[in-house]
Amino acid sequence: MLTYSFTNIGSDSLYQHLYKCIKNDIIQQILVPGTKLPSKRTFAKNLGISIITVENAYAQLQAEGYIYSIPKKGYFVSDIKNMHPRQAPILSSENVQLSAGVSHYLADFSSNQTSSDNFPFSIWAKLIREILNDYQQELVTNPPCGGILPLRKAIAKYLREFRNICVEPEQIIIGAGTEYLYGLLIQLLGFDKKYAVEDPGYGKIYRIYQKHNVTCDLIPMDHFGMTIDELEQKKSDIIHISPSHHFPTGIVMPISRRYELLAWASKSDSRYIIEDDYDSEFRMTGKPIPSMLNIDVQEKVIYINTFTKTLASTVRISYMVLPKHLVNQFYTELSFYSCTVSNFEQYTLARFIEDGYFEKHINRMRNYYHAKRDLLLKALQNSRLAPYVKIMEEDAGLHFILGIRTGLSDRTFCLLAEQNGVRITALSSFYAQPPQDAEHFFVINYSSIPEDSINPAIEIIYDIITKVSPET
Amino acid sequence: MLTYSFTNIGSDSLYQHLYKCIKNDIIQQILVPGTKLPSKRTFAKNLGISIITVENAYAQLQAEGYIYSIPKKGYFVSDIKNMHPRQAPILSSENVQLSAGVSHYLADFSSNQTSSDNFPFSIWAKLIREILNDYQQELVTNPPCGGILPLRKAIAKYLREFRNICVEPEQIIIGAGTEYLYGLLIQLLGFDKKYAVEDPGYGKIYRIYQKHNVTCDLIPMDHFGMTIDELEQKKSDIIHISPSHHFPTGIVMPISRRYELLAWASKSDSRYIIEDDYDSEFRMTGKPIPSMLNIDVQEKVIYINTFTKTLASTVRISYMVLPKHLVNQFYTELSFYSCTVSNFEQYTLARFIEDGYFEKHINRMRNYYHAKRDLLLKALQNSRLAPYVKIMEEDAGLHFILGIRTGLSDRTFCLLAEQNGVRITALSSFYAQPPQDAEHFFVINYSSIPEDSINPAIEIIYDIITKVSPET
Repeated sequence: MLTYSFTNIGSDSLYQHLYKCIKNDIIQQILVPGTKLPSKRTFAKNLGISIITVENAYAQLQAEGYIYSIPKKGYFVSDIKNMHPRQAPILSSENVQLSAGVSHYLADFSSNQTSSDNFPFSIWAKLIREILNDYQQELVTNPPCGGILPLRKAIAKYLREFRNICVEPEQIIIGAGTEYLYGLLIQLLGFDKKYAVEDPGYGKIYRIYQKHNVTCDLIPMDHFGMTIDELEQKKSDIIHISPSHHFPTGIVMPISRRYELLAWASKSDSRYIIEDDYDSEFRMTGKPIPSMLNIDVQEKVIYINTFTKTLASTVRISYMVLPKHLVNQFYTELSFYSCTVSNFEQYTLARFIEDGYFEKHINRMRNYYHAKRDLLLKALQNSRLAPYVKIMEEDAGLHFILGIRTGLSDRTFCLLAEQNGVRITALSSFYAQPPQDAEHFFVINYSSIPEDSINPAIEIIYDIITKVSPET
Repeated sequence: MLTYSFTNIGSDSLYQHLYKCIKNDIIQQILVPGTKLPSKRTFAKNLGISIITVENAYAQLQAEGYIYSIPKKGYFVSDIKNMHPRQAPILSSENVQLSAGVSHYLADFSSNQTSSDNFPFSIWAKLIREILNDYQQELVTNPPCGGILPLRKAIAKYLREFRNICVEPEQIIIGAGTEYLYGLLIQLLGFDKKYAVEDPGYGKIYRIYQKHNVTCDLIPMDHFGMTIDELEQKKSDIIHISPSHHFPTGIVMPISRRYELLAWASKSDSRYIIEDDYDSEFRMTGKPIPSMLNIDVQEKVIYINTFTKTLASTVRISYMVLPKHLVNQFYTELSFYSCTVSNFEQYTLARFIEDGYFEKHINRMRNYYHAKRDLLLKALQNSRLAPYVKIMEEDAGLHFILGIRTGLSDRTFCLLAEQNGVRITALSSFYAQPPQDAEHFFVINYSSIPEDSINPAIEIIYDIITKVSPET
């Protein structure tokens, strides 16, 4: 019978040692395929070890395919020449790097990456230092699931002063990014509800609903926003819209459509409006239209906003404002969740807002983006490209629409541009079913374009549309 | 016809002014219920404003219930005496504070709040300072959805050196807490799958699956862990277990059951094992049993661990290790998600691990908890309570089980303890259907108990079980 020594087994446990001995004999063909192994009881007695030790060694050998068992007969050595361990797929480094933000383009008009020069590093560092000194106990104390109260108070005050939105701090729920909050909302409002998003729209939002396995319809937009008839027809419950500044069309929803949508929502208890106010802080001109939350007297609007647009896309702090009856439901049903933002960042941001740095930062950034936009618009107007382009919806937020007169299809144009270092996305690519008249319009995100790339990028576009023959 | 002046309207827009004038007249009963309002066209002409302005004012009045419309007839003043605006429920401050971590007990054996004295504030502050100086560009650059590569590399190295787990950094996905990662896993593995959790178990995990609207079964445990028969019977696909140290029973799953579960998983492509290794770092004695990931050669194990247990419950950084074939699926299907942890904390933690501080911290904490546990055990043994209690499963992790000989029901005992400042949770409360023999056992989380509360808490328990007459 097989015999192994159990002296000098180092740090291995008995079963690990036995497992290694047998495995080694199998690999070295001392134990040939088909050999019957001793019964557990006999083997244990012979080696002076417990049955369970043999059992564990056999179990591991079997799990790894070195031996197999036949019921009521025992364990046998496998033919390991035929062992093809499941081939681990090679990790594609391209996949792994997906969505990494580093752009290698001369100009990337598709990126909404915030510019690195603008993050208030020195103030942030100062505040973190203060927080780490002053709030040690608070920093390691579990916050309520909606977030620390000082941050929710600071946000409520900010909303009151700058967006004319009056809410209780308790209505504000902090989360690690709006994407996370969308998922939380589905858990709150129900997987059985019918969700609806704007078409065209930000594809990611649609995908998030899809990935959460809820019904989500794409509702066509007219010139004022989502169309009510289609909502009625699709029997939607929850609509997800961005009335302040629609992406990508740039439409600012007029007050009449806002009321129509509120009227639509008022007709059933299950209906809600998710108002995604993602870049309203950067509205360039004109008096802002009141948010839908402002004119909602029936607790139908859930307001969502984020600091990823205003501070840095890598700071993952967003919030939603729930109507009061939903706040109570939230605390009853979902308060077992921990808040997803670390206390360290919550306290830092709270003080950043309280001490007025946020307001100053927003003003500075608004001016910065305003200047960047003006520079780009002026460069376009003064360029050889001017006769070929039309600028639209440039008054709100961080992007506008550029119409380009060209015989090239959107696909060809974008491809040629990309080959020449200019990344640009066609408006049509944001539609589920692009209408004919969406062709030749492009979405210009200008927030992260380096100033000295503007003119070369315009020249590249000019060259493409004038030197390449139109498709037949 | 109605006439209003449009001079001195302040900062109001025309429609807002008109809306306010009409609303005021309705409230003051100048316009009585049933009064027909002028048609939009006539009214606009009369007031010298645009039709759209009247339209907007009417729309807002209608949305708020001051007027109503009859198709093809026009707009009429509502009877506002019957208007009962939806009563906003009062926010219960108790609700809002739910899950806030501040404990007002003399001793709270139910809390797993990490102790505030132990967070390495000065090192953390030093590292943040360095990061804010050295990595400004990286800090504002969008990371891949799985997290920044330096952190994933640091975790891979740590797992290799301390848990003998060899994985590629690309297999590691960073997220804002394990609760978030569970939701992400459901999106990856499917809402159509049947999930299974341990009974007894950590109720929060069960609730997360329920809230995600997936089928989730509670699978009974025997003395070795989840029972396979029940899994087969329930046709479970995905099991969520904590083999290193089960909560609350403290069971460390023996290697044989681990292999049995791996064998169970190998029988179908849809089967996976989520190995939740939440407090394995604090195993007190003995050689750790290899993780299930270690002995998984068929890509069936998804390993999850967190820094909230080792650093602070308010630092929301956790990670999961995906089998390679699932990594590729993850990047194909879910890479549109942004990583939920801010870059600032990811870089700080990466350096904390790289520079060896994490290892030192774990060792220090292990000694700290070891000493705390020994103090508590010794205090129990030397107390008048000693003849009444039995200590079980004290070798792993941050809790143990205390059997108490008493005629009181668990409910009465816990209630009396709580009234006297000692919060303690019965083992039976972690069962869906508590078996008879789970009565009189209690879960002792000792990590956050102040040293000088130990003896008074023991005395309180002694008094309760000796001075209160048993229930009939």
